[in-house]
Amino acid sequence: MKICRYVTRNTASPPSPRFGLIEGESVTEISGVPWGAWTRSAHFSRLADVRLLAPVEPSKIVCVGRNYAAHAAELGNEVPKEPLIFLKPSSSIVGPEEPVVLTKFSRQVEHEGELALVVGRRCSHLRDSDDALAYLLGYTCLNDITARDLQKSDVQFTRGKSFDTFCPVGPHIETDLDPASLHVETHVNGALRQSGKTSLMIYPVPFLVRWISRMMTLLPGDVIATGTPAGVGPLAAGDSVEVAVSGIGVLRNPVQAPQD
Amino acid sequence: MKICRYVTRNTASPPSPRFGLIEGESVTEISGVPWGAWTRSAHFSRLADVRLLAPVEPSKIVCVGRNYAAHAAELGNEVPKEPLIFLKPSSSIVGPEEPVVLTKFSRQVEHEGELALVVGRRCSHLRDSDDALAYLLGYTCLNDITARDLQKSDVQFTRGKSFDTFCPVGPHIETDLDPASLHVETHVNGALRQSGKTSLMIYPVPFLVRWISRMMTLLPGDVIATGTPAGVGPLAAGDSVEVAVSGIGVLRNPVQAPQD
Repeated sequence: MKICRYVTRNTASPPSPRFGLIEGESVTEISGVPWGAWTRSAHFSRLADVRLLAPVEPSKIVCVGRNYAAHAAELGNEVPKEPLIFLKPSSSIVGPEEPVVLTKFSRQVEHEGELALVVGRRCSHLRDSDDALAYLLGYTCLNDITARDLQKSDVQFTRGKSFDTFCPVGPHIETDLDPASLHVETHVNGALRQSGKTSLMIYPVPFLVRWISRMMTLLPGDVIATGTPAGVGPLAAGDSVEVAVSGIGVLRNPVQAPQD
Repeated sequence: MKICRYVTRNTASPPSPRFGLIEGESVTEISGVPWGAWTRSAHFSRLADVRLLAPVEPSKIVCVGRNYAAHAAELGNEVPKEPLIFLKPSSSIVGPEEPVVLTKFSRQVEHEGELALVVGRRCSHLRDSDDALAYLLGYTCLNDITARDLQKSDVQFTRGKSFDTFCPVGPHIETDLDPASLHVETHVNGALRQSGKTSLMIYPVPFLVRWISRMMTLLPGDVIATGTPAGVGPLAAGDSVEVAVSGIGVLRNPVQAPQD
């Protein structure tokens, strides 16, 4: 099942976001929220007539760093003995086709394409015997945009990863997927830059969900970004960046210069 | 004006949180949210009959590290050339009198008493000439509870500062205050542990608001923790920790052992 959040184009009044199911070339509105009780409504639109939004409005975005050995190595880092986590603010989220806006505070803004998990059920302190995947609603693509120069100079990752528009998410949530063996690829202007397989994650998806749940209560709609494979690199104004995860789809965003 | 969020004790049905004004020994419920349009209602309670909750439910908590020279020195760090920021998740928030629960993942959980700012109006890219304080609703106390051992071993601050209950906030929001010359003190079991003056901040409040707004859009209800003065130290199960900011009040929390 493909769950999206969207607004209808070309309406007279300002449209309000709604959740829907993508089926072929149509979108059927749902009543309720996808991580709660919901039903199909009688309203549907052509996919071409809607604008997709980021499919989530999370209370937190938990990111995992250095979860692919080849990426840790390309930045000169060792593989961590435990997962390395950091947070991005929800104010950094944009949806498919929304611009990533560069910042005058950085000369080196880079893409990091990732598989993202969307939490479906509140959980905390999951045990090794718990089925972690049962707490997920589904999976989507995420681009953990990073001002690499600020990340290095600050040591703390936060500033370099928290600018507005630095967290494209989408295009929709895929609920029926085995996260163990997906391909994660990032293209810039059509050229392949990053390529990895989730089977190469140092800490696989069920481990991450359980481990993070032991620190922080995970709430419905929360997002976990599972780390980026090797091949990170710079973005420039005018670029088009695409994160593709097999079985989900493609998250595409144009890149813009800062506004002042 | 003192704005609080509270539930009424001893009601038959599960109480729903509401905002109110503390005036002397009474709390007057308000209709609306304190960062929007609101009016006084006709409902009031005795302060003794309500349970105060954390006065905010922020979309993000932005924390400033090493903003007092004496605290930077006590942990062997240099004063940063720019503000050093990190995030705490909203799932870490607890209110006054709610327990801080230690974690079996750390042997060194410490208090960090701070002045916290509550955003009142959406803002981004504030200019040097903008009146940053006009974008704040008010001020409260915050305890940036930190697993010091994990903070050191991870290098990234996130995990050590993100456990559930690691962000006591309250007891209320004081709207009429000059943040430039406040006393910030932390007591544990009645003994003074931390003492500082906001006049000694390396980056003062208006600078912080403007600077952070240039990275991230600040939303109504968002919280900025302004850094802790010297004197951080360990907490143990059974302790009582109090953060006091002059002109605001005292945020008190008991400390509990982990639950399993």
